[in-house]
Amino acid sequence: MNQFGQKYRISIFGESHGLGVGLTLDGIPPGIPLSIEDFTEDILRRKAGAKGTTPRIEADLPTLLSGIFNGFTTGAPLTIFFENTNTSSKDYSKLKTHHRPSHADFTANAKYKGFQDFRGGGHFSGRLTLCLVAAGVVAKKILGEIINVDASLIEAGGNRNIKKALDKAIAEQESIGGIIECTATGLPVGLGEPFFDSIESKIAHLVFAIPATKGVEFGSGFQAAKMKGSEHNDNFIDDKGTTETNNAGGINGGISNGNPLVFRVAIKPTSSIFKGQETFNSESGQVEELKIVGRHDVCIALRAPVVVEAIAAISLADFKLIG
Amino acid sequence: MNQFGQKYRISIFGESHGLGVGLTLDGIPPGIPLSIEDFTEDILRRKAGAKGTTPRIEADLPTLLSGIFNGFTTGAPLTIFFENTNTSSKDYSKLKTHHRPSHADFTANAKYKGFQDFRGGGHFSGRLTLCLVAAGVVAKKILGEIINVDASLIEAGGNRNIKKALDKAIAEQESIGGIIECTATGLPVGLGEPFFDSIESKIAHLVFAIPATKGVEFGSGFQAAKMKGSEHNDNFIDDKGTTETNNAGGINGGISNGNPLVFRVAIKPTSSIFKGQETFNSESGQVEELKIVGRHDVCIALRAPVVVEAIAAISLADFKLIG
Amino acid sequence: MNQFGQKYRISIFGESHGLGVGLTLDGIPPGIPLSIEDFTEDILRRKAGAKGTTPRIEADLPTLLSGIFNGFTTGAPLTIFFENTNTSSKDYSKLKTHHRPSHADFTANAKYKGFQDFRGGGHFSGRLTLCLVAAGVVAKKILGEIINVDASLIEAGGNRNIKKALDKAIAEQESIGGIIECTATGLPVGLGEPFFDSIESKIAHLVFAIPATKGVEFGSGFQAAKMKGSEHNDNFIDDKGTTETNNAGGINGGISNGNPLVFRVAIKPTSSIFKGQETFNSESGQVEELKIVGRHDVCIALRAPVVVEAIAAISLADFKLIG
Amino acid sequence: MNQFGQKYRISIFGESHGLGVGLTLDGIPPGIPLSIEDFTEDILRRKAGAKGTTPRIEADLPTLLSGIFNGFTTGAPLTIFFENTNTSSKDYSKLKTHHRPSHADFTANAKYKGFQDFRGGGHFSGRLTLCLVAAGVVAKKILGEIINVDASLIEAGGNRNIKKALDKAIAEQESIGGIIECTATGLPVGLGEPFFDSIESKIAHLVFAIPATKGVEFGSGFQAAKMKGSEHNDNFIDDKGTTETNNAGGINGGISNGNPLVFRVAIKPTSSIFKGQETFNSESGQVEELKIVGRHDVCIALRAPVVVEAIAAISLADFKLIG
Repeated sequence: MNQFGQKYRISIFGESHGLGVGLTLDGIPPGIPLSIEDFTEDILRRKAGAKGTTPRIEADLPTLLSGIFNGFTTGAPLTIFFENTNTSSKDYSKLKTHHRPSHADFTANAKYKGFQDFRGGGHFSGRLTLCLVAAGVVAKKILGEIINVDASLIEAGGNRNIKKALDKAIAEQESIGGIIECTATGLPVGLGEPFFDSIESKIAHLVFAIPATKGVEFGSGFQAAKMKGSEHNDNFIDDKGTTETNNAGGINGGISNGNPLVFRVAIKPTSSIFKGQETFNSESGQVEELKIVGRHDVCIALRAPVVVEAIAAISLADFKLIG
Repeated sequence: MNQFGQKYRISIFGESHGLGVGLTLDGIPPGIPLSIEDFTEDILRRKAGAKGTTPRIEADLPTLLSGIFNGFTTGAPLTIFFENTNTSSKDYSKLKTHHRPSHADFTANAKYKGFQDFRGGGHFSGRLTLCLVAAGVVAKKILGEIINVDASLIEAGGNRNIKKALDKAIAEQESIGGIIECTATGLPVGLGEPFFDSIESKIAHLVFAIPATKGVEFGSGFQAAKMKGSEHNDNFIDDKGTTETNNAGGINGGISNGNPLVFRVAIKPTSSIFKGQETFNSESGQVEELKIVGRHDVCIALRAPVVVEAIAAISLADFKLIG
Repeated sequence: MNQFGQKYRISIFGESHGLGVGLTLDGIPPGIPLSIEDFTEDILRRKAGAKGTTPRIEADLPTLLSGIFNGFTTGAPLTIFFENTNTSSKDYSKLKTHHRPSHADFTANAKYKGFQDFRGGGHFSGRLTLCLVAAGVVAKKILGEIINVDASLIEAGGNRNIKKALDKAIAEQESIGGIIECTATGLPVGLGEPFFDSIESKIAHLVFAIPATKGVEFGSGFQAAKMKGSEHNDNFIDDKGTTETNNAGGINGGISNGNPLVFRVAIKPTSSIFKGQETFNSESGQVEELKIVGRHDVCIALRAPVVVEAIAAISLADFKLIG
Repeated sequence: MNQFGQKYRISIFGESHGLGVGLTLDGIPPGIPLSIEDFTEDILRRKAGAKGTTPRIEADLPTLLSGIFNGFTTGAPLTIFFENTNTSSKDYSKLKTHHRPSHADFTANAKYKGFQDFRGGGHFSGRLTLCLVAAGVVAKKILGEIINVDASLIEAGGNRNIKKALDKAIAEQESIGGIIECTATGLPVGLGEPFFDSIESKIAHLVFAIPATKGVEFGSGFQAAKMKGSEHNDNFIDDKGTTETNNAGGINGGISNGNPLVFRVAIKPTSSIFKGQETFNSESGQVEELKIVGRHDVCIALRAPVVVEAIAAISLADFKLIG
């Protein structure tokens, strides 16, 4: 299913090289002011163009097909469409047999029996994250002024000096990954539920809906496994739930405790690289060099913080509306 | 909601110190042989009793209330109940005001307005993972002989020598965490879907339904963020999707690629420790020492591998039934 | 799936001749006073014993397995179990081949490949409606004092004089059906949504979860098809939405308009009759007389009003909690 | 939620006088041939233009925004958009205060706090049924050649002579309702489940997603309430489940029994009529005559059979894919 959410529901569609990509948002409260301009900032943050990003630059102008009237949300489904305007005309058909390593070409071909739109990854393309960003913009409006969600790249290629890491990767015709940290402040106590609807469960679910993610950790994360209980426990200092430390990342028993929500996401190096790769070609029946000549990002993690921020906002908006 | 799954649906209920805990499994195919004995091994693996585990030892005998006839599943919902037999009679009422650090006492009290069953964590108790284990037993039956799911503790307290780490923690009246690795082999190509129903999304969702988890990573995981694309990419070596390396952890584009599924889970140190903790008491209105005198695990991660295995099996059984 | 609801979720299980039947209710707000006694009245209304009902009389005492603490709901799942105490020991195995007309024996056997519990209809038994009644009791508590749901049998065997119709049916060794009318008053304006979550959709969905229902109609119902627009339209008489007539049955565009919700349900004659029936026996391979010797109701519609009332309350409680 | 379905999922959006209406279909198997032309016939059947239908005639040309590649479905979501081209420019703003009787103006205004798009009913418009028809076209393709779904108007204004009933209604400036019968043949035994996922539950749910429906009945329907058990029971005549009579309408215990599925739907008279109506105006604070001057259908039931057929196909396609 290409749908997610309990009360704030997102449904995405589209392909990298088809007419476009889009989304329907259901469950938006009526009366939220919303305009095309509201999407500009976050869409720009996701956009290519900076060093280390792909030269494919799309206009990414949203068309609001429904759900808006006189500048406000109506309570009816909001459908947003982004036309594809800059699709390259090159021939993608060899991807049907010479599958790119660590892409979804092979699995998509197996699952969809060869009927998938394989051009530029089709429905599996990172371009679909544009839909997540758009859903995040509306989610942030639902969250309101007091709740603030913020994500940034804290490390690329194993290096805190991101510029340096990028220069090196470009010089080597390589790609690199990175780590994104996301924080949400101003959350009320009591969002989320134990077990299957824990805040961590919903956020982690959406984190792995972002292509290229390999891991997620909350608060102390993997470091927790090396800590002692007395170091790790977050002592309360008042009756509002404020804690001395925040190893919990703002969540106890799946439920927000009023401290900042903190999680980190590991992004793998972009799978498309300029270097040749020795990989099986099912047409010839043997391992052969594959040269990927399309346009792609050296470090997709550069464009991902706003996507991570979006999925955090989507999760939290859903929890807020559930009440 | 205390429910999860699309076709193989699990619904859990119960409290640590109430009548018991249980679960309903819906969507089980008819005709699977199933007996009480089938649950024994995995329930034993989760059970307390070994060094580093709590002295509270429950019988954990499942009663099959429905869904079984003549030794086979019927296709109707299977409800399993585990009576609580060894609940301690001590007074838990001070937990209503003197919340244990890093437990759910505070958040549960806020969310459920003081009506929660606070005895031993109530519905938030790790005892509910017994239900996950039971669901895992049935899930493994659905997966069949070819698919094999296996999880083990690979590190405790930051140490690969788990016995040593435990001895040290016991001596220090401390608790420690650990890292669990889970592998599933024999998976067909094509389970899972892109985006919201990726294998990673479903597994990560359930990982964080296990109390005490702080992180999850697939394949190369957080290490991926430090690798180059040419190192990280998994080249195909045949037309079955076999790859030279398995940094993907067996998943491309959210879909199984036929290589082993691999993920790791970080478990925090048990929140209950014998050492006194300085934490806010809302009755007195000040920070005071809290001594936790109940029975508890030094390293809950010791008992968690079978739970992690269970949630992997639950996810995969759901994907298998979805087809 | 044996589950229903968005925020007030019901999950049912059990069989007619197994250990018992039960249900789990998830999404109940904390702090609702609830005791065994609260179930007595509605369970009695469903109970057999009166003229025209089956001589199988069960104790129907609910056991609250979870979700209750100190006499109040906790917010955690509430599981209720009803033990089967009066199961007849007769041999049901011939139902596997000589399927009772208009029962689910044939379809269950086909769908569940012979593994279904066929004793007394197994999981398909009307005994499962006891679970709906229990869920209705809790739903009515959620609805509160102002909202009142009431259902009654308005016709049996085509006759408004129900006693007379029953006497005739008993004399003829026949069974008869009936029509139940349900009304809910005190509803706020604004419950429900257009299209898939209309009040009618949710109620109709649950109406047909009650075995033996053949039809449902709201307000003017089937009569509407014979009316003119000027007769059928409900003119508003004030700004609260009060209408002169109530052909809408209290719903416009799927949403409650503040007028009484009214719907009627058609119940077929009990499928089990004492008269012999000529029906195919797959063992002998020919049509043969089947004599049903078990205990059964002459008019199941007599016991159904409280079930219809329950499903209305379940639907409305869900809408109320969705907000 | 504007979404429905378990495996074949439909999500609808749009407004009567906005940019258009549309839908996303998720869960379509890959490899189904599909073109714009496939939609023509059913869309024409729903279209206005015949006697008794509205003079607002839309082009109703579908644009396939995603999910199609080289003339086949890909397995990715299929989004279809229908532009609104013939929206009347008249002023609808008085509908905000002078609510049309038996329309959703009043309830929408209350629920969406005045932010709803009230032009021509906005998101509540019957125009959204075009989306259901489109989903029905794809559903029929999923059902394949053997399963045949067919619906027709069997009665209008209480009269089997539909032409005569229309002439009379037009002459009287009235509107009339009707009854639609839908049959599905070629169904395998075993679709559907007991209780909440019965075939009747799913179909009834969708029936009431069609604006203007007041009732639904299966097989013998409301007539069943007047029959004796021996008359009503459907005796089996072979081991395929063929029955002598079909009062069950092809369903036992919620599951298809291989006989034709039969149900009927009651459609109320169109709420918009040319005659003046005395109804409350919240602007003036008194009951006043309302004259509806827009374009509308005398008998909306004329255009509804293809919609009823569509929702039957949608339900059955979902059951087929669930397996």
